[in-house]
Amino acid sequence: MGFTTAAMSSPVLFHFPFDPGSRAARLALGEAKLAFEETLVRPWETDCPVRGLNPSGMPPVLQTTHNGKPLTLCEAPAILGWIEDQQKTPLLLPADPAERAEARRLTAWFERLFTDDVNAVLLHERMEKPLLRLGPPEARALRDGRAALKDHLVMLEGLAAGREWLAGRRLSQADLIAAAHLSVLDYFGELPWKSQPALKLWYMKIKSRPCFRPLLADRFQGLAAAPHYADLDF
Amino acid sequence: MGFTTAAMSSPVLFHFPFDPGSRAARLALGEAKLAFEETLVRPWETDCPVRGLNPSGMPPVLQTTHNGKPLTLCEAPAILGWIEDQQKTPLLLPADPAERAEARRLTAWFERLFTDDVNAVLLHERMEKPLLRLGPPEARALRDGRAALKDHLVMLEGLAAGREWLAGRRLSQADLIAAAHLSVLDYFGELPWKSQPALKLWYMKIKSRPCFRPLLADRFQGLAAAPHYADLDF
Repeated sequence: MGFTTAAMSSPVLFHFPFDPGSRAARLALGEAKLAFEETLVRPWETDCPVRGLNPSGMPPVLQTTHNGKPLTLCEAPAILGWIEDQQKTPLLLPADPAERAEARRLTAWFERLFTDDVNAVLLHERMEKPLLRLGPPEARALRDGRAALKDHLVMLEGLAAGREWLAGRRLSQADLIAAAHLSVLDYFGELPWKSQPALKLWYMKIKSRPCFRPLLADRFQGLAAAPHYADLDF
Repeated sequence: MGFTTAAMSSPVLFHFPFDPGSRAARLALGEAKLAFEETLVRPWETDCPVRGLNPSGMPPVLQTTHNGKPLTLCEAPAILGWIEDQQKTPLLLPADPAERAEARRLTAWFERLFTDDVNAVLLHERMEKPLLRLGPPEARALRDGRAALKDHLVMLEGLAAGREWLAGRRLSQADLIAAAHLSVLDYFGELPWKSQPALKLWYMKIKSRPCFRPLLADRFQGLAAAPHYADLDF
């Protein structure tokens, strides 16, 4: 992976393309039509530049300026929050208080429950183990992770069947964060779309947005994407 | 624990007093000087009323109204976000963009890293096991949890030594969320305050605020608080 040189005027996003939080930041920057330079990072390597920027050592980190002063935004919530603070009208959080609360509830759901139940198990086996050379995946962990994923998909199918977007009538950060998480799993062929028809329609809709295009070009070392990964009509 | 009847005009907070997220909601409502009724809940019991309100089944949940319509806020981020949305001037998030980003970074730190490293281990042994009757704590888990806590305290000591409040020059949700987490551990006598003098001063400062008083009166079933728990000058 290469490093890009940032123009002084453009924010620089330090991200790992298969980190869901990094993907959420890219999608939010895209929805806000904020141009940015990219520095791809590998957070598990000791010389990863994010280690000098974020105390957690993890992407995403956005380096930008505010009133001419440097401003470093660490972690997806700080980046998404800053993007929303720049808007004249609500973009990532709906104006309606109930939809706003729902977008925040779903954000917490993904950051806490989905991350614990699915990512820490299934993404650990499929993504972290090959990256960190920790050996082949374990059958039991794959099974547990997929069972947990199925429960979350059933919940999301219920939301997608009853609403235009996950938090209500308009797109919100809940959609971007959900799509960030699901798209990583989709690359690895872990999403049984046929069982979730309403969620599939929602995913087709968000996948067709211009902000999504860069994610569809991501490539994981040594592993091709699932065949439908980059298809808008799958 | 009893149920209180809410006046139509007051929001009702469903909370478990030793859940850090519930404590953060109480502290934020207190800082905002928003009166509220309380319903104490035990989320592990099958008839817990939160199960009908929040899909995760977990407190905190705030039931309120907006323009005369009922509004249910699930999870601490939705409650804190709603409180901030009601303010004319910033209260939980500082106005300064760098401090604002720092408050959001630290919020994510507690919700993700502190929860995984400390609460899932040490609070599980000290709090969840007695509540769920899962047997006595395991020595190894206690040791691991305390070692992880120490690392977090060293990080927080560094922040407290260099700043007035954790995210910068003014109190923010980062202080409330950190105090929510640390105060639960403090009840169980798990905080080695002597090793963290700057953090101790910060904690004395936040503990003296009116919003904190109700937390100091909380009592855990069958276990008295650590002797200094409710002392403002400890």
